[in-house]
Amino acid sequence: MTTVYIAIVCGLIAVVYGIITSQQVLRAPAGDAKMQDIAAAIAEGAKAYLGRQYRTIAIVGVVVAIIVGLFLGPISAAGFAIGAILSGITGFIGMNVSVKANVRTAEAARTSLQGGLTMAFRSGAVTGMLVAGLGLLAISGMFWALLTLGHYDLAVGADRRVIVDTLVALAFGASLISIFARLGGGIFTKAADVGADLVGKVEAGIPEDDPRNPATIADNVGDNVGDCAGMAADLFETYVVTIGVTMASMALLLPNADDLFALMTLPLIVGGVCIITSIIGTYFVRLGGGSIMGALYKGFWTTVILSIPAIYFATQYVLGDMHAVLGGSVALGNLTPDAVAGSTATSFTGMGLFWCMMIGLALTGALVWITEYYTGTNYRPVKSIAKASVTGHGTNVIQGLAISLESPALPTIVISIAVIATYQLAGIIGIAFGATSMLALAGMVVALDAYGPVTDNAGGIAEMAGLPDDVRQRTDALDAVGNTTKAVTKGYAIGSAALAALVLFGAYTTDLGIYFPNITVNFSLSNPYVIVGLLLGALLPFSFGAFGMTAVGRAAGAVVEDVRAQFRDDPGIMAGTSRPNYARTVDLVTKAAIKEMIVPSLLPVLTPIVVFFVILAVSDQASAFACLGALLLGVIVSGLFVAISMTSGGGAWDNAKKYIEDGNYGGKGSEAHKAAVTGDTVGDPYKDTAGPAVNPMIKITNIVALLLLAALAAHTGAG
Amino acid sequence: MTTVYIAIVCGLIAVVYGIITSQQVLRAPAGDAKMQDIAAAIAEGAKAYLGRQYRTIAIVGVVVAIIVGLFLGPISAAGFAIGAILSGITGFIGMNVSVKANVRTAEAARTSLQGGLTMAFRSGAVTGMLVAGLGLLAISGMFWALLTLGHYDLAVGADRRVIVDTLVALAFGASLISIFARLGGGIFTKAADVGADLVGKVEAGIPEDDPRNPATIADNVGDNVGDCAGMAADLFETYVVTIGVTMASMALLLPNADDLFALMTLPLIVGGVCIITSIIGTYFVRLGGGSIMGALYKGFWTTVILSIPAIYFATQYVLGDMHAVLGGSVALGNLTPDAVAGSTATSFTGMGLFWCMMIGLALTGALVWITEYYTGTNYRPVKSIAKASVTGHGTNVIQGLAISLESPALPTIVISIAVIATYQLAGIIGIAFGATSMLALAGMVVALDAYGPVTDNAGGIAEMAGLPDDVRQRTDALDAVGNTTKAVTKGYAIGSAALAALVLFGAYTTDLGIYFPNITVNFSLSNPYVIVGLLLGALLPFSFGAFGMTAVGRAAGAVVEDVRAQFRDDPGIMAGTSRPNYARTVDLVTKAAIKEMIVPSLLPVLTPIVVFFVILAVSDQASAFACLGALLLGVIVSGLFVAISMTSGGGAWDNAKKYIEDGNYGGKGSEAHKAAVTGDTVGDPYKDTAGPAVNPMIKITNIVALLLLAALAAHTGAG
Repeated sequence: MTTVYIAIVCGLIAVVYGIITSQQVLRAPAGDAKMQDIAAAIAEGAKAYLGRQYRTIAIVGVVVAIIVGLFLGPISAAGFAIGAILSGITGFIGMNVSVKANVRTAEAARTSLQGGLTMAFRSGAVTGMLVAGLGLLAISGMFWALLTLGHYDLAVGADRRVIVDTLVALAFGASLISIFARLGGGIFTKAADVGADLVGKVEAGIPEDDPRNPATIADNVGDNVGDCAGMAADLFETYVVTIGVTMASMALLLPNADDLFALMTLPLIVGGVCIITSIIGTYFVRLGGGSIMGALYKGFWTTVILSIPAIYFATQYVLGDMHAVLGGSVALGNLTPDAVAGSTATSFTGMGLFWCMMIGLALTGALVWITEYYTGTNYRPVKSIAKASVTGHGTNVIQGLAISLESPALPTIVISIAVIATYQLAGIIGIAFGATSMLALAGMVVALDAYGPVTDNAGGIAEMAGLPDDVRQRTDALDAVGNTTKAVTKGYAIGSAALAALVLFGAYTTDLGIYFPNITVNFSLSNPYVIVGLLLGALLPFSFGAFGMTAVGRAAGAVVEDVRAQFRDDPGIMAGTSRPNYARTVDLVTKAAIKEMIVPSLLPVLTPIVVFFVILAVSDQASAFACLGALLLGVIVSGLFVAISMTSGGGAWDNAKKYIEDGNYGGKGSEAHKAAVTGDTVGDPYKDTAGPAVNPMIKITNIVALLLLAALAAHTGAG
Repeated sequence: MTTVYIAIVCGLIAVVYGIITSQQVLRAPAGDAKMQDIAAAIAEGAKAYLGRQYRTIAIVGVVVAIIVGLFLGPISAAGFAIGAILSGITGFIGMNVSVKANVRTAEAARTSLQGGLTMAFRSGAVTGMLVAGLGLLAISGMFWALLTLGHYDLAVGADRRVIVDTLVALAFGASLISIFARLGGGIFTKAADVGADLVGKVEAGIPEDDPRNPATIADNVGDNVGDCAGMAADLFETYVVTIGVTMASMALLLPNADDLFALMTLPLIVGGVCIITSIIGTYFVRLGGGSIMGALYKGFWTTVILSIPAIYFATQYVLGDMHAVLGGSVALGNLTPDAVAGSTATSFTGMGLFWCMMIGLALTGALVWITEYYTGTNYRPVKSIAKASVTGHGTNVIQGLAISLESPALPTIVISIAVIATYQLAGIIGIAFGATSMLALAGMVVALDAYGPVTDNAGGIAEMAGLPDDVRQRTDALDAVGNTTKAVTKGYAIGSAALAALVLFGAYTTDLGIYFPNITVNFSLSNPYVIVGLLLGALLPFSFGAFGMTAVGRAAGAVVEDVRAQFRDDPGIMAGTSRPNYARTVDLVTKAAIKEMIVPSLLPVLTPIVVFFVILAVSDQASAFACLGALLLGVIVSGLFVAISMTSGGGAWDNAKKYIEDGNYGGKGSEAHKAAVTGDTVGDPYKDTAGPAVNPMIKITNIVALLLLAALAAHTGAG
């Protein structure tokens, strides 16, 4: 049990780091009265939105908690509630730090680039460490409480089932909140951004973040509720699902292993030591003559390098002999050996697991590098979009779409290599550990990401408060890097989701064998129900993306109407003599975003259930289970491509605009710049609404399927 | 053998219909000298391009023919050559009729809309009947020649293998040419179109098809080589692959059936009778007060309705008792029952097959209706894009992408229903017959499609020759419908490709059992090599799409440079006093298109081979076969979505522009119109280059895998 305590202590250290660092941020000077005024308006809007969003989600959450309680009992319902509440808290705290740090970053950027960087990154690090820390505390705390307070025993099948169910319910809670938060926040931020750009930059011809634009506060609010709170909830979900499902899959696949407890605590301690290496890494983020990206990379690579020995010693500490054979054989119901995922390699060594985790780290590094290539201003993709802007809007968009379609190739290849390598080392458990070590770095990766909205806001405040041009230049430089780090996190999250989804599919097939030992399910590709499942699953990310894009378009249209009305009703706004009604626009976007997030968020929750019962109606249970299982893989197969192409493509469009603004191809105000603004507008909902929400969508589909199995088993009396 | 003769006669009737109708077209008045001059320039450019394209393809073709000959023997090489040559001929004749009909359609449109419609549709019908007729002649002729001249016997395994191999080689020949033709033609047409629009409409502010624009002849050439010749080669391929693979799969899956010969001739006679119903249908295309689309639909629905009894009686004629049980059990190597596709339902009745074919017809009708909904100007999707254009370029593209992402949903659902229903009726053979009846309508569907480029050209000639405005209005009205019919054909082709690919996958698994009886291949979704195969397969359409988009962007850029240079060097061009050098632009686009088509066309040919040998190197043969098989399904799973979203989305963008030009949201010249032109430009390579080329790409990947199996078997001495 010492291992679990160590994990809990590491989680607490992350929380303490968060508290201390946030106090450091708060102690910094907050600028002049005008700046504070603007920041207060942003903070107010962000809190108002998040409050309303959480109240809406709470209604869904309570209903689902009751359903979970009815079908799976009160312990699972509690797990669900804890996952949901902590996911919400992570987003809320992250947003709170972010709205305080924005104005302080603008103030710090008055003196130096380093000052602005430090302030923004520290604020990001608070969110990052809270995501990892609270995630680890949730899982390790729950695991400890079940084993100690609940007196469940891993050696007993029924007890193990309670632990697995609770971990899955915890993951479900985190997932359900995060899909709403990602989507609602994503719709808010991009509706405000696109609307503000259209009516301000394009129609009225005023610059971005001009205080005369009534939508400008809403735009800045959006950065906080979407890119900060939504992202934090999403990564919290990714963390909890990955670590939780790694543990659950061992409980399912290796029921007879003597070392089951040690193996189940290994992900916890790996998460714990990597929180420490992430905290150390944050102190290495400094400019030292190089680029801003270089400064952030110093922190990231320090964490990666320190994590290698940390993971090694943690593994050795937990497992003892690194070369002893672990795991055990599987004997579940009537499943044929190949029907149980990973059963061909359920024996492995500690060294094997260590190498799987190294592969996870390498995959993280590779995905970071590939994403930077596709979205950084120094490389071919962004430059090619900038160049295509010279011949107009159409060619900008064509080239952007070409880059968007091209971008999934390398990630797919490295993910495929990682899947094969980890599987050869330790079967499905190896894939799970690869995903675990990826997520162990979440504290650092989220820190890099959460830095982005702060600098974006700082730029907005600098503009609105009329700070000198050199301040805005510094915040712009910080912000351009933020586009890349934001894309990096999304690539990382979706890459880990691909691995986690395979583990979830393994859990699905195993559960199937346990719950329904008398049904032989044929998962072969020659079963037409498998084909149909793959097709319907692959359809989900497309339909989901369509919903997201439409929602942003519609809500942005409402913003345009509102701003036009404000300009029309009060000519003093454009003259600069009256203050626009910022709150009215914030309120409008709030209502629109909440309304638009409901249907697409429920799509991945309800689809597995509907597909299962429809196939059951036209065929039999075996076909329905096969179709449902294939649907889970179909979602990940197309989701990976849709998500990467959207997030990388969107990031590339955004930075192509920044590249032109840096003075290339005619610079600001040129025809090429206008075309690049169009590309940026198109990329906005791609990269910040539809694309990133695919990540929780994939997981939630898989988790709902697992819960459906459990509910069916309880209902039909099987198991 | 009478059945085969009937099929051959029907194929000949189609060819005779083509000859007679093309003479009718040629006899019509060809307009004044200026019109004939323009038409001659277009015809010259089209012939020059197609000649050069075919010479390039011929080099690849000869190399591949030699490889096929070496590995599979001279008969297969001959099959390959026949498929390749006929595919080329179909495209060539279609293009030839089209470049003659364009000026005659413009001339006929001087007097009436009906006159223009009749002329354009007749020309389309020539191409349509040649596609179906030559396709049917190729397969039935080859089948007859093997059985009669080659003295092969279906009752003998080795003989049956020769017939299967030859059918597959025939399909491969058609596929290989069609991917080059689709892609090369698609790059040509859209590079010229986009380039001409950018430099003419956007930069110089001159209308579309203005004779001062040096790229305008290239644009019109593109319609003929891309939308006519490329499309014809593509649909010829779809026809040959679908009918050929349906026959081959029966020879593989039902080796012991007494009625094997009858079953194998059934697709031929179904194709034959539907040529007759298609020819009858062409005479029902007339306006009669309704819309142009309504006139075309009269022909289409007449064909569909007449085909129902025609197929019934053809089936009864071939099989005799419609309720007798057909088929037989499969016993191949060591394959477990579920590993052989369709083996769970290899017994079926004639009535069952008839219903499968009815499902194919229903699926065709459903896909036509859905595509019209997404691309027609009367429905929500196109209107929503037009409305979004009011707020600018960005929102136009966002809404277009949203529609694009939404459009695969309904087709996927109806295809899924068709797969399940046909499979329940007659297993994999049922799916094959569903696809066969879809393709049996190819004559009619291609006629509707090939009508499009003729009207497009007619409009261009009317504009360039300075015909009165009302003529241009008539050709524009005809052309708007062409956008929808073009999208319809693509949706139809990709829908049938989904079914055909499943049949090809069935052939792959069956061949695997025959060639490598000692290798147990695990196609279960829990095999990580299957996952990796799905991922890599799903990647292909994305990468392929990226190549296509980039190629068009790059080639269009070259057109812009050339036209700018012409304007700069000779100011008389804009003044209207000198004639631009049309041929120089045509030549430039020709070279660019040929250069750009090579790499992406080879991608689907080489990927299956590379993936197989890479997996073989890191694992074993069973894993490599599993990965390759999954790759085949991955291609279809993501290809379906990529293709439908691109073709429907592109069609919707195009017609949103037309909808605005009809006077909505400010009409021509308004800001909304400019935004809609951007959307149209983006949609162009989507719908005419990248999207439609996915269809032959899916098939070629599958066929290459089948040939790889045969080659490996020959090499390793198995089989």
